[in-house]
Amino acid sequence: MAKAPVLTPQAEDFPRWYQDVINKAELADNGPVRGTMVIRPYGYGLWERMQAELDTRIKAAGARNAYFPLLIPQSYLAKEAEHVEGFAPELAVVTHGGGKQLEEPAVVRPTSETIINEYFAKWVQSYRDLPLLINQWANVVRWEMRPRVFLRTTEFLWQEGHTAHASYEDARDFAALIHTDVYADVMTNILGIDVVLGRKTPSERFAGAINTLTLEAMMGDGKALQMGTSHELGQNFARAFDTRFLGRDGERELVWQTSWGASTRMVGGLIMSHGDDNGLRVPPRLAAVQAVVLAIKGDEAVLARVREIGAQLAAAGVRVEVDDRTDVPFGRRAVDWELKGVPVRVEVGPRDLEAGTAMLARRIPGGKEPVAIDALPSVVPTALEEDQETLLRQSRERRESRTFDVRTIEEAAEAAKSGNWARLPWSEVGAEGEKRLAEDAATVRCLVAEDGSVPVSDDAPGTLAVVGRSY
Amino acid sequence: MAKAPVLTPQAEDFPRWYQDVINKAELADNGPVRGTMVIRPYGYGLWERMQAELDTRIKAAGARNAYFPLLIPQSYLAKEAEHVEGFAPELAVVTHGGGKQLEEPAVVRPTSETIINEYFAKWVQSYRDLPLLINQWANVVRWEMRPRVFLRTTEFLWQEGHTAHASYEDARDFAALIHTDVYADVMTNILGIDVVLGRKTPSERFAGAINTLTLEAMMGDGKALQMGTSHELGQNFARAFDTRFLGRDGERELVWQTSWGASTRMVGGLIMSHGDDNGLRVPPRLAAVQAVVLAIKGDEAVLARVREIGAQLAAAGVRVEVDDRTDVPFGRRAVDWELKGVPVRVEVGPRDLEAGTAMLARRIPGGKEPVAIDALPSVVPTALEEDQETLLRQSRERRESRTFDVRTIEEAAEAAKSGNWARLPWSEVGAEGEKRLAEDAATVRCLVAEDGSVPVSDDAPGTLAVVGRSY
Repeated sequence: MAKAPVLTPQAEDFPRWYQDVINKAELADNGPVRGTMVIRPYGYGLWERMQAELDTRIKAAGARNAYFPLLIPQSYLAKEAEHVEGFAPELAVVTHGGGKQLEEPAVVRPTSETIINEYFAKWVQSYRDLPLLINQWANVVRWEMRPRVFLRTTEFLWQEGHTAHASYEDARDFAALIHTDVYADVMTNILGIDVVLGRKTPSERFAGAINTLTLEAMMGDGKALQMGTSHELGQNFARAFDTRFLGRDGERELVWQTSWGASTRMVGGLIMSHGDDNGLRVPPRLAAVQAVVLAIKGDEAVLARVREIGAQLAAAGVRVEVDDRTDVPFGRRAVDWELKGVPVRVEVGPRDLEAGTAMLARRIPGGKEPVAIDALPSVVPTALEEDQETLLRQSRERRESRTFDVRTIEEAAEAAKSGNWARLPWSEVGAEGEKRLAEDAATVRCLVAEDGSVPVSDDAPGTLAVVGRSY
Repeated sequence: MAKAPVLTPQAEDFPRWYQDVINKAELADNGPVRGTMVIRPYGYGLWERMQAELDTRIKAAGARNAYFPLLIPQSYLAKEAEHVEGFAPELAVVTHGGGKQLEEPAVVRPTSETIINEYFAKWVQSYRDLPLLINQWANVVRWEMRPRVFLRTTEFLWQEGHTAHASYEDARDFAALIHTDVYADVMTNILGIDVVLGRKTPSERFAGAINTLTLEAMMGDGKALQMGTSHELGQNFARAFDTRFLGRDGERELVWQTSWGASTRMVGGLIMSHGDDNGLRVPPRLAAVQAVVLAIKGDEAVLARVREIGAQLAAAGVRVEVDDRTDVPFGRRAVDWELKGVPVRVEVGPRDLEAGTAMLARRIPGGKEPVAIDALPSVVPTALEEDQETLLRQSRERRESRTFDVRTIEEAAEAAKSGNWARLPWSEVGAEGEKRLAEDAATVRCLVAEDGSVPVSDDAPGTLAVVGRSY
């Protein structure tokens, strides 16, 4: 008799599979206020590791962390016309504080460009103060009509970087640096997720930006997920807040700005990129637990041995956990670690001890085989390196095999409807083509150059549009 | 002619000195919504290092990080009677979201006991799920009528731990573990701040707790600052939210809980503990920059040498920054590093190079002397170790020399009015005595046992009350 699956199979219902993974692997719960989420320890552990990897690279790019208030006077939002138009429908508004109605309502930040410019305008005096490179780790609130855990939540966690520069070129180059050296590096080399780097079309840009750089990943069902964005803000916010500096020439000039963000949405992207019908698969470089050593039975010799193996793996540089909870049936624990996507399980029972071996179960390629216990400190790190490469390769192969070069907007719409991506000349699409795609719930995910680089402008010759449905 | 001081001298006006340090050392600005603050990079750097030190110890105590929503349905707060009474006057209320009035207003969390219990009640089923040990790093909002940057702000950053246990004893011991092994350890051994560990009197307890453990530090002006608290919540929230577990005996019992928090207020405590008329003094173990190597002039040989010294100090394990901004006058940079409290400055000019020496300026004991450049990699780490001890010793000496053993409540009130602390038998104070102290703006900061340990109950024989004014 076949075992009933713990999760809805992906092929049956991908969104339900996603929700099942989140519940069963104890990643998150829905919050009580519509669209909010509770991030449970295992899910938060994934985010914490993403944070650490991003933070190191953000600091290496020269930015320093700071913190701006959650509550923004409503009038600030209105100062930049496109910005308020973009965010007004999503705002949460505090009207009462300390038992009284507020004279001016405050909005819970949906993003911090406005409040940050209020301070940049004070802090920036001369060209010597530039570039000013700030990042903050924060929660933001955008009222969400169709919430989905990690992907679209009323409150989410993110980092938002905000910088001011003396010239257009400096700002442009910094936005690009974050795009490649921070975001693409973490997503590719840590998360093991293949990403297409491109620029957004004018209609898909951030509200208030002159250019939005994006990283688009293909999920297991062929839909796209925007994993992070880096914006050139031009002088739009500088003009609205009069953020100026005294140049070397003695003139007071407006600064050029960027902003860039990546959020807990990445956790959703990780699940949908690598997960399979048995649950999550966590890339070893991200995993807080890379290997778990399980005692099959509560036998003294077994318990002593699993602890010893744990110590040996830790000494070999593996992030390891020992599971000696033998009052919980072994099968249940094994399924749980599989659901949670821990790359390597080392399973040890009394019979294994006699043979001097342990069962090595590998989550990412799948399969199980006996390995000499003495060999584990060399076998496990090698397995983890392979697994990291495997996930990225599978992610890349999926994207490549499911992206089709087409010639017409109709063919592109058709590809998107079938759960694939299409690539076609942007000159064949344009604003009119974007409307046509919207009828089939598809969008231009980004524009790319023929050689795969990021186009320097919206109308650079040879620019291609990547089309798909998205989360 | 004497130089005009950059800061208001402490002796002249301590609160104004505090505000001056915050402005001139670029630690924080006031936010636009009353009582909020902008934490600038140098101030945030102090907080980041505090976070890292706390986080390591919180994890070592067995807790795991998670994240609960910012927005809490208003009805949740009302479930625990003392809790809502304590927090109702300070709440910020979101009445509109996504352009519509909400059916039920949501409060911006002032603390998370209520929303966390809603989930603990779901997650805890059996004794096997206990202890459940959770921590979160978050912002909270409490509307503040008399705000002061870092000390009392409408929004602040903190960690809040929340745990559930199977017995009263387990919960009590865990609250005590956090009190000593997390908070006291970080404050004493990293922040270099002497803290008195005690319990709060019933009237000073957290709203909803059966016992509040506190850490009280004496600031430079003799006032007390509560640096962190760890609460035994008993079964109050468990009862309100029906948080129960199936015991080994088959009975469904209420859990026993704790909560504990430390916040950005610690940054204020650091400033007021160690600062002097020249600015901040940062303890080396906390400092993101322990030593700065300054080029006095933009001479090629000098610049090459400061970079070399920087690399040598880094190799010796010192967190070092090279200041080669020779387009800014040397004097201004030196004053700025002094204001920011960097423990060691190594100053190098052309004449020093000839002599093979550099000037070693030490912020904590004060003073400057030439040191052979070759000796720096051994001299600087030793100096930093000394400085760490010096700050703690000075903090302890201040508290000891300004704490007076008295016999009556009148004497205690008098001591507090003079900017000192008094210690007297708690039996001489009681609830009536607390009212008398309040007339002189003094409070019982905490109760301690005669041997300096934490009393096991409010009425343990020989319990002493520590009295002072506070922030």
